[in-house]
Amino acid sequence: MTVVLHPSVYFNTIGSHEPQLKVRDGDTIETSTVDARGWDRDGAQAAERGNPMTGPIYVESAAPGDTLEVVFDWIRPNRPWGWTSNVLAPNVVDPEAVQALPRSEIVRWTVDTDAGAAYPEQPTYGLSRLKLPLRPFLGCFGVAPARGQAISTATSGPYGGNMDYRGFTAGVRVLFPVQVEGALLHLGDGHALQGDGEIVGTGIEISMDVRFTVRVHKGRKIGWPRGETDSHLFCVGNARPLDQALQHATTEMALWLQQDYGLTVEEASQLLGQTVEYEIANVYNPAYSVVCKVPKSVLALLEEQL
Amino acid sequence: MTVVLHPSVYFNTIGSHEPQLKVRDGDTIETSTVDARGWDRDGAQAAERGNPMTGPIYVESAAPGDTLEVVFDWIRPNRPWGWTSNVLAPNVVDPEAVQALPRSEIVRWTVDTDAGAAYPEQPTYGLSRLKLPLRPFLGCFGVAPARGQAISTATSGPYGGNMDYRGFTAGVRVLFPVQVEGALLHLGDGHALQGDGEIVGTGIEISMDVRFTVRVHKGRKIGWPRGETDSHLFCVGNARPLDQALQHATTEMALWLQQDYGLTVEEASQLLGQTVEYEIANVYNPAYSVVCKVPKSVLALLEEQL
Amino acid sequence: MTVVLHPSVYFNTIGSHEPQLKVRDGDTIETSTVDARGWDRDGAQAAERGNPMTGPIYVESAAPGDTLEVVFDWIRPNRPWGWTSNVLAPNVVDPEAVQALPRSEIVRWTVDTDAGAAYPEQPTYGLSRLKLPLRPFLGCFGVAPARGQAISTATSGPYGGNMDYRGFTAGVRVLFPVQVEGALLHLGDGHALQGDGEIVGTGIEISMDVRFTVRVHKGRKIGWPRGETDSHLFCVGNARPLDQALQHATTEMALWLQQDYGLTVEEASQLLGQTVEYEIANVYNPAYSVVCKVPKSVLALLEEQL
Amino acid sequence: MTVVLHPSVYFNTIGSHEPQLKVRDGDTIETSTVDARGWDRDGAQAAERGNPMTGPIYVESAAPGDTLEVVFDWIRPNRPWGWTSNVLAPNVVDPEAVQALPRSEIVRWTVDTDAGAAYPEQPTYGLSRLKLPLRPFLGCFGVAPARGQAISTATSGPYGGNMDYRGFTAGVRVLFPVQVEGALLHLGDGHALQGDGEIVGTGIEISMDVRFTVRVHKGRKIGWPRGETDSHLFCVGNARPLDQALQHATTEMALWLQQDYGLTVEEASQLLGQTVEYEIANVYNPAYSVVCKVPKSVLALLEEQL
Repeated sequence: MTVVLHPSVYFNTIGSHEPQLKVRDGDTIETSTVDARGWDRDGAQAAERGNPMTGPIYVESAAPGDTLEVVFDWIRPNRPWGWTSNVLAPNVVDPEAVQALPRSEIVRWTVDTDAGAAYPEQPTYGLSRLKLPLRPFLGCFGVAPARGQAISTATSGPYGGNMDYRGFTAGVRVLFPVQVEGALLHLGDGHALQGDGEIVGTGIEISMDVRFTVRVHKGRKIGWPRGETDSHLFCVGNARPLDQALQHATTEMALWLQQDYGLTVEEASQLLGQTVEYEIANVYNPAYSVVCKVPKSVLALLEEQL
Repeated sequence: MTVVLHPSVYFNTIGSHEPQLKVRDGDTIETSTVDARGWDRDGAQAAERGNPMTGPIYVESAAPGDTLEVVFDWIRPNRPWGWTSNVLAPNVVDPEAVQALPRSEIVRWTVDTDAGAAYPEQPTYGLSRLKLPLRPFLGCFGVAPARGQAISTATSGPYGGNMDYRGFTAGVRVLFPVQVEGALLHLGDGHALQGDGEIVGTGIEISMDVRFTVRVHKGRKIGWPRGETDSHLFCVGNARPLDQALQHATTEMALWLQQDYGLTVEEASQLLGQTVEYEIANVYNPAYSVVCKVPKSVLALLEEQL
Repeated sequence: MTVVLHPSVYFNTIGSHEPQLKVRDGDTIETSTVDARGWDRDGAQAAERGNPMTGPIYVESAAPGDTLEVVFDWIRPNRPWGWTSNVLAPNVVDPEAVQALPRSEIVRWTVDTDAGAAYPEQPTYGLSRLKLPLRPFLGCFGVAPARGQAISTATSGPYGGNMDYRGFTAGVRVLFPVQVEGALLHLGDGHALQGDGEIVGTGIEISMDVRFTVRVHKGRKIGWPRGETDSHLFCVGNARPLDQALQHATTEMALWLQQDYGLTVEEASQLLGQTVEYEIANVYNPAYSVVCKVPKSVLALLEEQL
Repeated sequence: MTVVLHPSVYFNTIGSHEPQLKVRDGDTIETSTVDARGWDRDGAQAAERGNPMTGPIYVESAAPGDTLEVVFDWIRPNRPWGWTSNVLAPNVVDPEAVQALPRSEIVRWTVDTDAGAAYPEQPTYGLSRLKLPLRPFLGCFGVAPARGQAISTATSGPYGGNMDYRGFTAGVRVLFPVQVEGALLHLGDGHALQGDGEIVGTGIEISMDVRFTVRVHKGRKIGWPRGETDSHLFCVGNARPLDQALQHATTEMALWLQQDYGLTVEEASQLLGQTVEYEIANVYNPAYSVVCKVPKSVLALLEEQL
């Protein structure tokens, strides 16, 4: 069933808030998100700034210990402009280089969905020919954390949240570890495009129309957000510093290979050691995010054998 | 001119050692490297273990403040087997998960250069069909560090060293900041292939035959190793933790864009913010290595304008 | 006025929960806390494990932008035993050393408040004469965080929380940045004593009777928990890794010296550079805590001058 | 025997350099050190800047696997002034706070050895009454590292080096793991005083007269610098980030307790967990230094039992 949610309330934390919609396992939801500052499709201030979330959406039958799958059919910018910071974040350059950084300002980019491209509205000379392909995704989405917590949408954890991973595009199968009854899915913080790491502190921030389907994997317990693309399986670790985020993601992937592919620790280690790929999703938020990926072409060899 | 070096002496530090060969700007060198344990093409112990280096090679006219360019024509495994550790390194998994790791052992892999593939010699059941494409590179190479230092080939720094970056394949234009007269290029630690991060502590370790050309860029001063592939420019930062390695690489890339592409800080920031790509080269050695990359397709837009 | 709170409800998050008591600026409160596992003075399970909190206590007139001062008259173990883990936490030893660690167990310690000492109940041979002086403090206390957040008592932030700083003993003047109306003070997780860093993951965990006085400093805005002892001023930074916790604490202390002692940045820098003292409060929780201290004997020299 | 070394050559790396003096186990050495910029007792440029070292001193009978003990009888400033940076290092404050830091300058302090105090030569208003007690120590000293390495005196490692630990005062028994024949002791970088962490990047830098005695503990193998004061045993870990330095120091201390005090891992863990003290020696150099300390009063209880 396809259900439509016209959001009227937004939350700046991810938590066990009053559900704005109840859906069933397998339902498809159409809704929209405002941008990181709460600006909607008309540029109006529809919510308080700081990654306001659409939702939460209560998914019937989802319970702690299950996994919630989310697949987006589309993630579409619903206005013709976005915005970004224009100076590298102080924490991504050498401390000695920070004094030379100018003060960051917000600049607007044109987002042309017909052409599938974005570019600065009023570029200075050096960027006057810059035009980049759109690659829309949601910077912040996830399920309510455990123990009744309500956590700022500035950060992330095992429940997802503000991971700002540019790989979370439409078509990707995303998996979250359900922590509370109904899972309570929150979503927002759309980016028209972004580089690795979100190193200016933003992508091209924009409001979105989205459609996605939720599925509950009963009794499948995972520890961190996971995903699957056409080419890879991946796990996301969220923590500071990057070293710890990488440890979370790698540990989760090694478990996955052992549990679902029947590998021993030594086998999983050799496979990862020679084929693993990492992405730095964000190196700006209170918790950084590292993605640990394994090519499905490699796993296909294992599966033939099973 | 093409010169051949048959190495007889190997060094386990990168430093201002007696040159084993003197060449001119533009010369091509053919030589070989032993593996990380000092085993040569015949499996004989030709050097002390711990990344023994071929060289140093003195490049005439190279002086502090210059840049040394190295391009490999080929990097070819010269024996039919390599070896690797078979358990994830304790520092890449959650501390709580380390107790469950078995003790690491060395296992041999068959390296079939005709087929262009590698696989475990005596695979356990789970890996019995595993076969991976070769992607040979040198894990450790670089120029002598400043101030008369001689630094273990276990680690790395602004001068290069044990970066274990699997992107350093044949055809890549690699740039090092020259620190001493003659640059004093060292090279070794060949890997037949490896995943990101070198997370079992090794690639498929193997001895190599190599051919490469050196060029001196007089008066071009850089701060960290840089490189150019068909598709990207990149900078390498070497430090612990990953956060600091990333800071070094990002700072160096922002400088590159400002100096060679005439961008302002704000322009370089926006371009990097929306297009940068990171790779985690190694997260095992005393200094970790992070690679900051910019697509040449993006830079091409800027160049049209110049 | 002295008011008594007999807690019947405990929270495992610090947040904007229903106040359990309302007091006025200047009031003194007598209450008790259960231990980290929810065991009370009788050893009964009075609350869910995971640092259950007494409170919150609503302090009239406290509002965002103010500072809440808390001074304990006493922090007294109210039962004759505590407990602790008996193996170093995996994250405080070298990753290569973790495999050799045995599995941690909970062991009980006798807590003799008359003698002012604690020792293992059933010591193994090596510790048979170990007897340590009591130094009771609360591991976890603080005010509700901003934006309606409710954050697990496992961790800490600008609002305080699970800092596990053994310096928070009776008599210390503790200052918290008020984030919400009424401040909403939470407290619990008593330790009869503990070393720096909480490196086995616990102190000697015990339930407590406490008496303390709260005062509101209207319009005094601070960024992180601060404190004052007979000998020092101090600021606490909470974050991972230790480097970032230290940055928070140092930045806050430099501000304090500039704002309240009229020093320039250069003056505050020289003073800190030659006299600062750091303590590692905890290096175990999701956020580590570092304390930046300045001797009052040094500040006394400045004050004479004012 | 007491021997005198009048240094004429200084090294800016710690390595297997030509010994400037050969002494025997038990000998006492009188010599002097220049300051971090190479300025001697007369303020003349006697050596190249960057922590030039007096030595190396070859200690007969010392060999890899042994421990070298160094105890200073005195460490005395030999001129009436020192110098320091006057702004906090960018890496010890929040990245967001760095832009507000002024540019650091070098300022001179009067060092009055008769009065035992130091103060700015030309204090600005806020520091006009500042006067701090001297607490002289050497910021950089240690033995030659293994494998023929020669490592910049900017950094540190298992061999010691630029630890900038203000606890290394006269009277402390310091232990280094010998890595090469003769140990090859280097020393320099005197500080008249300094706070924890060396957070302005310097102490009060000054040239020194020193007298010390060396002893060789044959067959006693340690992993990191250790020491003993009147009140504590301590171990030093050198690495980045602080977390790793702490891991090294804690691991070394746990080993010490097991090896020399016969404790099990669980016993050492409990003892450390409830009594350990940490100091942050430096948080400025390429490798940070953390000191793990155990009170001898606690160990005395164990020794009675032995």
